[in-house]
Amino acid sequence: MPIDPQAETVLVALKNVPAFAHGLVRDLRVRWALEEIDRSYRTEIYEAMTPRPDGYREAWQPFGQVPALEADGVRLFESGAILLHLGEQDERLLPREPQARGDAYSWLIAALNTVEPAVMDLQWVDVFRAREGWTKEARPGFVDFLRVRLTHLEEAMEPDTWLAGTFSIADILMVTVLREIRHTDILDDYPKLKAYKERGEVRPAFIQALADQAGDLGAPIKLGEPA
Amino acid sequence: MPIDPQAETVLVALKNVPAFAHGLVRDLRVRWALEEIDRSYRTEIYEAMTPRPDGYREAWQPFGQVPALEADGVRLFESGAILLHLGEQDERLLPREPQARGDAYSWLIAALNTVEPAVMDLQWVDVFRAREGWTKEARPGFVDFLRVRLTHLEEAMEPDTWLAGTFSIADILMVTVLREIRHTDILDDYPKLKAYKERGEVRPAFIQALADQAGDLGAPIKLGEPA
Repeated sequence: MPIDPQAETVLVALKNVPAFAHGLVRDLRVRWALEEIDRSYRTEIYEAMTPRPDGYREAWQPFGQVPALEADGVRLFESGAILLHLGEQDERLLPREPQARGDAYSWLIAALNTVEPAVMDLQWVDVFRAREGWTKEARPGFVDFLRVRLTHLEEAMEPDTWLAGTFSIADILMVTVLREIRHTDILDDYPKLKAYKERGEVRPAFIQALADQAGDLGAPIKLGEPA
Repeated sequence: MPIDPQAETVLVALKNVPAFAHGLVRDLRVRWALEEIDRSYRTEIYEAMTPRPDGYREAWQPFGQVPALEADGVRLFESGAILLHLGEQDERLLPREPQARGDAYSWLIAALNTVEPAVMDLQWVDVFRAREGWTKEARPGFVDFLRVRLTHLEEAMEPDTWLAGTFSIADILMVTVLREIRHTDILDDYPKLKAYKERGEVRPAFIQALADQAGDLGAPIKLGEPA
């Protein structure tokens, strides 16, 4: 099992995360990648709901976020960047054939810059700013915008394969992004995307990563809480 | 000069772009990178304000956006992905020393997934959805959120250097993201960021890329229009 208190690789993550975010915090992406290549790591865990300690932004993450990683003598932040670093070292995460590698880059960045911003805007109106008056009027436009993205993604998706042909860091990104609308039933309208997400979520490495993240959260995910 | 009708490398871009977006369309990032390494390319130009032709999404870009690139027998989409591909091949775009390379990855992804989404939300309320009633009430919260990001970025920025030490694809991303709030005076409050953006904008490769993009737009940038 990759988690090992003696490991040289250090993953920075959170504890005492609000129920809404259980199973969504982005260190999950890094844990998943590390599980896929069976690479040992230990965790350094910070409180989610209080400010990071002095020096955290200088040492680990300029924006105060998680995850961050120390691996191979290098410190990295941003889940996408960490996955690029790990992918460079292991073909199981990033294919070597030029077009497949290009596809992995393209879809990784599409997940981060084309799909996730639309998803984050929906979280913004549904969760983080839900008490503000403007969100009710804004929401339909945000949903429409997200649906354009999802429709295009659905049309591009080949059944029973991964975005770059073989499984890659692009799938770790895209599957975890699609999980971020689990508080809605929107994905039900995109059967290929729903099936794709579920194929990601049954991978043993994903299941182990989710369990390990839940363990570090300090409490099991509540019964009835979406995983 | 890199633009060459006989070049093997093909960049997909737009013409007849609205004035607001002149000098902001994301093929600028790719042109800039190609100029930095003096790599020849030709362009394939589509109309900005009409739907892309049939087959465009299958051939070039699943979401109907620009840029896309064909280079080295590989097709890529998303500016960040194209820059990763080009960076892999040339140390002038992506350093080889492990920590510097990690820094380039971290800041590239931070530009795309932490800074640009906050910038895009401000564009959303100020430009694309400006006529909708909710935007006036929403705007202060969007500005506050962006300012948190910019404050952290300002604090992390070393004067007179680039994000990964030497100039890299991370700077191409971050500088072009910071240009996307030129319709506001927000950046005036962040002197290190403003100076950093301007150091990017005076690089000969940037200037040439901007001029070539303007040429392909079919009309010069209007006098008085921010470049």
